[in-house]
Amino acid sequence: MTAERIEALRAEMRKRKIDMYIVPTSDFHESEYVGDYFKARKYITGFTGSAGTAVITETEAGLWADGRYFIQAERQLAGSPVILYRMGEEGVPTVKEYVEKNLPEKGCLGFDGRVINAKDGEDYEKAASDKQGSVYVSEDLVGIIWKERPQLPKNPVFVLEEIYAGERTADKLKRLREKMTEKKASIHILTSLYDIAWLFNIRGGDIDHVPVVLSFAAVTEKESYWFIHEETLDEKLRSYCRDNQIILKPYEEIYAYAEQIPETETVLLDKNIVNYRIFHNLKSGVKVVQEPNPTELMKAIKNETELSNIRNAHVKDGVAFTKFMYWLKTNIGKQKITEISASDYLEERRKEQELFVDLSFDTISAYGANAAMMHYTATPKTDAELKPEGFLLVDSGGHYLDGSTDITRTMALGALTEEEKFHFTTVCRSNLNLASAKFLYGCRGLNLDILSRGPLWNLGLDYKCGTGHGIGYLLNVHEGPNGFRWKIVPERGDSCVLEEGMVTTDEPGVYLEGKYGIRTENELICKKAEKNEYGQFMEFETVTYAPIDLDAILPEEMTASERNLLNHYHEMVYEKISPFLTEEEREWLKVYTRAI
Amino acid sequence: MTAERIEALRAEMRKRKIDMYIVPTSDFHESEYVGDYFKARKYITGFTGSAGTAVITETEAGLWADGRYFIQAERQLAGSPVILYRMGEEGVPTVKEYVEKNLPEKGCLGFDGRVINAKDGEDYEKAASDKQGSVYVSEDLVGIIWKERPQLPKNPVFVLEEIYAGERTADKLKRLREKMTEKKASIHILTSLYDIAWLFNIRGGDIDHVPVVLSFAAVTEKESYWFIHEETLDEKLRSYCRDNQIILKPYEEIYAYAEQIPETETVLLDKNIVNYRIFHNLKSGVKVVQEPNPTELMKAIKNETELSNIRNAHVKDGVAFTKFMYWLKTNIGKQKITEISASDYLEERRKEQELFVDLSFDTISAYGANAAMMHYTATPKTDAELKPEGFLLVDSGGHYLDGSTDITRTMALGALTEEEKFHFTTVCRSNLNLASAKFLYGCRGLNLDILSRGPLWNLGLDYKCGTGHGIGYLLNVHEGPNGFRWKIVPERGDSCVLEEGMVTTDEPGVYLEGKYGIRTENELICKKAEKNEYGQFMEFETVTYAPIDLDAILPEEMTASERNLLNHYHEMVYEKISPFLTEEEREWLKVYTRAI
Repeated sequence: MTAERIEALRAEMRKRKIDMYIVPTSDFHESEYVGDYFKARKYITGFTGSAGTAVITETEAGLWADGRYFIQAERQLAGSPVILYRMGEEGVPTVKEYVEKNLPEKGCLGFDGRVINAKDGEDYEKAASDKQGSVYVSEDLVGIIWKERPQLPKNPVFVLEEIYAGERTADKLKRLREKMTEKKASIHILTSLYDIAWLFNIRGGDIDHVPVVLSFAAVTEKESYWFIHEETLDEKLRSYCRDNQIILKPYEEIYAYAEQIPETETVLLDKNIVNYRIFHNLKSGVKVVQEPNPTELMKAIKNETELSNIRNAHVKDGVAFTKFMYWLKTNIGKQKITEISASDYLEERRKEQELFVDLSFDTISAYGANAAMMHYTATPKTDAELKPEGFLLVDSGGHYLDGSTDITRTMALGALTEEEKFHFTTVCRSNLNLASAKFLYGCRGLNLDILSRGPLWNLGLDYKCGTGHGIGYLLNVHEGPNGFRWKIVPERGDSCVLEEGMVTTDEPGVYLEGKYGIRTENELICKKAEKNEYGQFMEFETVTYAPIDLDAILPEEMTASERNLLNHYHEMVYEKISPFLTEEEREWLKVYTRAI
Repeated sequence: MTAERIEALRAEMRKRKIDMYIVPTSDFHESEYVGDYFKARKYITGFTGSAGTAVITETEAGLWADGRYFIQAERQLAGSPVILYRMGEEGVPTVKEYVEKNLPEKGCLGFDGRVINAKDGEDYEKAASDKQGSVYVSEDLVGIIWKERPQLPKNPVFVLEEIYAGERTADKLKRLREKMTEKKASIHILTSLYDIAWLFNIRGGDIDHVPVVLSFAAVTEKESYWFIHEETLDEKLRSYCRDNQIILKPYEEIYAYAEQIPETETVLLDKNIVNYRIFHNLKSGVKVVQEPNPTELMKAIKNETELSNIRNAHVKDGVAFTKFMYWLKTNIGKQKITEISASDYLEERRKEQELFVDLSFDTISAYGANAAMMHYTATPKTDAELKPEGFLLVDSGGHYLDGSTDITRTMALGALTEEEKFHFTTVCRSNLNLASAKFLYGCRGLNLDILSRGPLWNLGLDYKCGTGHGIGYLLNVHEGPNGFRWKIVPERGDSCVLEEGMVTTDEPGVYLEGKYGIRTENELICKKAEKNEYGQFMEFETVTYAPIDLDAILPEEMTASERNLLNHYHEMVYEKISPFLTEEEREWLKVYTRAI
């Protein structure tokens, strides 16, 4: 099927004399996850991962995927004509290097200008012009061949009340306009769905598990424009917009809006996010200030209301997870449980919690070797039955009105090998080591990453991804500009200075292809510690509350202080979670949070 | 005296209508340490530290010093009209910010164009022009008022034989020209004294303890020019230059040379090093490629000959240090020993070693509270008598034909407080923790710095400097582009990817003003460990061999694995050093390298 679709695309390319066509994983907003309408790269290659880019030429079809997806992509591309390019590995060209090298002289490079950001669009433009070639960006070729394409999502929008958001839209707009003044910008074009949702205190459901609203925004010194499918707004929303001086415009009108901006204006925008078509509709005399959206940092620094809500959401989520873990550990081997039935059980426990909105992403429930694929999703076809041995890795989370969670636990279902226990213990040490860091203000994730990665590096192991990511508040669970990563990846933009109020995951792991996968993930709130002559010290508060499976721990492989950290963590888990459990669950939790 | 000199300078400033005059710590080559001729900033402020900048206006005289020198500068400036600006502290402006803020409208900013690098010179030019002002850079005003100024150094030059350098000049020039071709440059102007010495395999003695030769170089596709005081070369050197096609020119002719470069040429140079006058003598049509000198990275990556020499030099240096430590520990309280007599004794032991050339820097021998000043130098006035209690910190090193060393040991002279022992043990753990790091290729110092700094940060302590610096081979003991530091300091340029063959110090410390200072410093060679599916792993080999004083260690404050690291280190020290000791010294070393 993939082969046929690629051929169909090539036919369209030939009609237009396009030599090379790029199909990224993107909507018109550079969202990480995209609605089904936008899954053009999946349509054309069959690879379902959340990230990856396809490049099609007359003779070759390539897919670029990152380390998280190597194993999955290999499986999903097997039997198709698509070649896997393993991003970041030695000797593997980037998409841009591939384009530069393989676009023929005077060749034509094509892509849909709405699904490529302005920055990449300019780079591709340059690559083509370096070959005396051209770009073709006015049509969506995949759209032409994709007959049963899903509709653009147009789900209802709701207001996130101040008790959840912690700051009024008017105040957020005021802070944003102060930043605009500081940057000498008169207009700010904002196309990030997360930032728009945060700024206007609204949520929707236009991306699976990412409660955002497909829309664009433009903020001037006096006005706010919201480009949105108006049918998604009810009277309450319209009145909310009026109250907040938000002027409604049709979704597609952003392009015309960009076109009419007078040359006297200065537009603040982030070329890494704003799409190529919007950017190129600006008159050439319009001055552009290229900056990250000021809202990105603002929304990453959670306010006191958000932080207190988040702590509360994590208690509920921890109760759901602990109930699930109790059920799993006490029923394994006694009844049939599969990867999917396990995650269904967990989902039910989450749904019982107050203010639950949705899962915060598709649960990863991966048994045995399946867990070696970092972002495996069980399907009815792969759904493995759990046996009373080895590990089940569950990476899951919930969206609640009072915050979003992202937790991974790897659980022993029965007998483990010594190697499995040793690696589990090492991952636990890695996790605790980072969580207990104390550091001077000014540190970035890349200063701290080795605290988590070091114990694995010492064994000659590594995980091919960051150690952690920022996490949104009822938004995308992956959120910048904070993160833990040892090498700056400019396009990820997750290496900022760690600020008080940021929430970041801490999720080291061991992934042995064909054997097993282990990951332990907690969320950390960054807080101020003491300030003294050396500067402002910072530390973390762990807000994920669920047992780290002691059945898989080798206490003798931990130092006394590491055991102490684990014991303190477990003491806190028991305190927070036990009040919400049944008698049997509480007894069980007592054992599984015992001091070692 | 300082006040008079400042007034004299102000008189010269007034004659020329200069509103603000900058006196940096620099020669014409951006050397870190400078010959006496160049100590204009010391002359004008009285502050003797190796780094710092003075700015004089009609009403104010300021000195900018970094964290290493806060305590020392405070003492040396006491009673003078000079105000200390503590670089890096909250709210303290940088020199440039100060200039931008305080230069009056239409004001004139002055400095000697030869002692400011091109990059800073351009920034100052801009700061002045932003105020519709001007710069005055053609005269050395301090030179005018400085009556008994020392002569420019013109010491004899010698060739560093291939058995020491490990690579012929011809081969180095070939590699350099390949880099020039890669950068599309036809001429390379090289003014770093370290890089010139490395490139031409020559050494001299024009800076105290830095065996370089005051000179400039220019390399074209075919020729090499060496701008040097020819009287420093004997016939052997002249013949060496002829053999290597190095064309000799007078030292001052570099400015005329720069002026005559045709506009068709492309010059590779590092504006952070090349002085402002050279840069501005280039015709405006000459194309400049701004890049670090390619020789910087080349010389930091030591070749196999250098590495094997370095290991050997460290054995000799370790023997000298161990003999000193034995003498100190067994004689303290029995005879009068002072900071200076102790360092003299150590110097004698170094001089006994084969191939000894010089100390690699002025020994820091600091007793008790004196050691809280990171770069304290004992003078006859401050020279403290050592008592059989507390700590003596000795930071010292030797230049040998087979390499340079830099070692710090802090030694218990008798009773210690529990706090002193606890801090000493923590510093030891910090040192070992970094030295035993294993990491993926691609890491920079800033990824690893927390391994050393973390144990101190955990206590709410910090040291106000990098954790370590690259070290030259019979050159400057401070050498880029490698180093350990948690925040990038662009002007230091010591945050490169750690490469196999680089040598970096590992020197965490605790400095408590008025109480004591503790530092333990070893040198680490960066080496390849295994390469596997995760990438190329790297590790360190410690090449400094001297006991870490067990009298100050609290074994119970170390984990089993930390004690193991220390025991292994001490085992190696005994193996390497004991064959060169007397019977008594050997017995003593056995005790001081025992397993704990």
